[in-house]
Amino acid sequence: MTTLRIRRPDDFHVHLRQGEILAGVLPATALTFGRALVMPNTLPPILTAADAVSYRQAICVEIAKLGADHFHPLMTIKLVSSTTPQTILAARAAGVVAGKLYPEGVTTNSEDGVRDLEALYPVFEQMQACEMVLCLHGESPGVFCMDREQHFALSVLPFLAGCFPKLRIVLEHVTTAAALRTVESLHDKVAATVTPHHLLLTLDDVVGDKLQPHHFCKPIAKTPQDRDALIAAAVSGNPKFFLGTDSAPHPRDQKECASGCAGVFCAPVAMEVLAEVFEQQEALPKLEALTSEFGARFYGLPLNDSYVQLVREPYAVPQYIEVGDTQLAPFRAATVLNWLCQIETS
Amino acid sequence: MTTLRIRRPDDFHVHLRQGEILAGVLPATALTFGRALVMPNTLPPILTAADAVSYRQAICVEIAKLGADHFHPLMTIKLVSSTTPQTILAARAAGVVAGKLYPEGVTTNSEDGVRDLEALYPVFEQMQACEMVLCLHGESPGVFCMDREQHFALSVLPFLAGCFPKLRIVLEHVTTAAALRTVESLHDKVAATVTPHHLLLTLDDVVGDKLQPHHFCKPIAKTPQDRDALIAAAVSGNPKFFLGTDSAPHPRDQKECASGCAGVFCAPVAMEVLAEVFEQQEALPKLEALTSEFGARFYGLPLNDSYVQLVREPYAVPQYIEVGDTQLAPFRAATVLNWLCQIETS
Repeated sequence: MTTLRIRRPDDFHVHLRQGEILAGVLPATALTFGRALVMPNTLPPILTAADAVSYRQAICVEIAKLGADHFHPLMTIKLVSSTTPQTILAARAAGVVAGKLYPEGVTTNSEDGVRDLEALYPVFEQMQACEMVLCLHGESPGVFCMDREQHFALSVLPFLAGCFPKLRIVLEHVTTAAALRTVESLHDKVAATVTPHHLLLTLDDVVGDKLQPHHFCKPIAKTPQDRDALIAAAVSGNPKFFLGTDSAPHPRDQKECASGCAGVFCAPVAMEVLAEVFEQQEALPKLEALTSEFGARFYGLPLNDSYVQLVREPYAVPQYIEVGDTQLAPFRAATVLNWLCQIETS
Repeated sequence: MTTLRIRRPDDFHVHLRQGEILAGVLPATALTFGRALVMPNTLPPILTAADAVSYRQAICVEIAKLGADHFHPLMTIKLVSSTTPQTILAARAAGVVAGKLYPEGVTTNSEDGVRDLEALYPVFEQMQACEMVLCLHGESPGVFCMDREQHFALSVLPFLAGCFPKLRIVLEHVTTAAALRTVESLHDKVAATVTPHHLLLTLDDVVGDKLQPHHFCKPIAKTPQDRDALIAAAVSGNPKFFLGTDSAPHPRDQKECASGCAGVFCAPVAMEVLAEVFEQQEALPKLEALTSEFGARFYGLPLNDSYVQLVREPYAVPQYIEVGDTQLAPFRAATVLNWLCQIETS
């Protein structure tokens, strides 16, 4: 039996939701990962230190129920037009590690996103000064869906990186070869998170055969060439690229409907899918750096001191995961994976 | 009140389905159009003269119930690997006007589609000889979804047109500027049908915001540039382009689900949507040629001798149309259109 022992991974981009869904999805993240950067686009959104503290408390209640003491949520706030430098300072003091910027209207709950980037420059200045990371949903609104990320990566991203040379910037859930090249070319304060599902999916998996709402996410999966470039980046050993699952659960009836929500619930299979991809690329020895080192170092965090085991054995992913009176479809639902991630008991 | 009186239109590409759905969707087509070319990808498919005769009878029963005596279905057969020149001759003798070719696996019920085009050359020869039209689902299997039609249009289509210079060929439901250019450049036996929905939709309307299964069709809607090229072709007055709605109803539970069927049910709003597009383009006087002349001439049919009225008044499209114990979502569901197509009573 093949087993790969790696340092416990971190997930630098996850949607944990609230209430019943939070309780239902937290195990997939908290039992495997050491830390996760928790996205703030809840309803209502996490905008301030107080919001983040309250949200962290709600998460910690569920962590305690799980007995997952090793797991630490890393909190974020959402940057909106009303965010001020004082908001940033207070949030930083409360332990918030990153501010997330959504251009207006580009993804789930981004109707209050940012339209006037320049008005936020004092906020970015403050983030730079107090070492808060700027996380970007890197898509330009109003641009054709297949070109939104490229447009953002070729315009906004280099501009921000140039204006704020000491600000750590993460282009979240990178999906295009063009954006990868931009991130590679910019200084080392600019990085990108890679999702497991974007290493597997192209637009063909969303609309190429039957319509697959559970493969629908933002940014939309792109071309085979883009996916191949993402795989190459993931296995490259370049510390600018690290894991952020963008695991984004939506109740079944909000996916399988006439107007479906964007998001892939990949947390339950994140490490397993990565192991498959890295195995196919004959790059398994490089997996640990992507999942457990590069992200922590970028965020200035110590590496986790516990370990997980990736065991090469069949893992039958359920069709749906029951959460309260709804169902969530995990990524790779109703398929059998070749790897299973197990927790090392100490 | 603005009224536009035009010759009764023909629909040179429609999916009428079978059984209860046939009865439910036929009014949208038969009450407005004079003729419709009925696609053969039913289950089981329409493969022979006998199949076509039987299917026509089933349709005619429903026409009689509707009292839509003016409406004449134009029958097709599906070209599969077992189709022979004798199949073609018998079908032609039974009044079948076209053979439809689906490359394997490119759309609904195309699992039995054609893989080896060359093996069908004797069939194409026979179609050419007996003046049966070749209708093409013009997408290359195995190619990235956004490139499938362009690939087909740049490779298979010119080749077929060159090999069979007297065979009338229709590239159905054209969606790309590249395919339009190819059709324009080939000899005048090569034409293309234009759908109403591809004049409005881009990929953004499928996956650009929320996921819209009722905008999901094959070929998938393409870029804004492609859509603009389609509009330009539709209003150009070039007789190579004529109306084929590709109206393709699917029960709601086969669209709003985890693996959705491709097809837009546009028949209930086809003329109304076209009127809106042509009005926006200040091209209303050219609408009649697209809908009621070019197609009939290409197929060698007399023009219809009755008329319809397009009246500029609000038309509230229902969210769903009830058919038996299922529901069908029409294109532009739950919106208000500016035009209403009315039948001229004689």
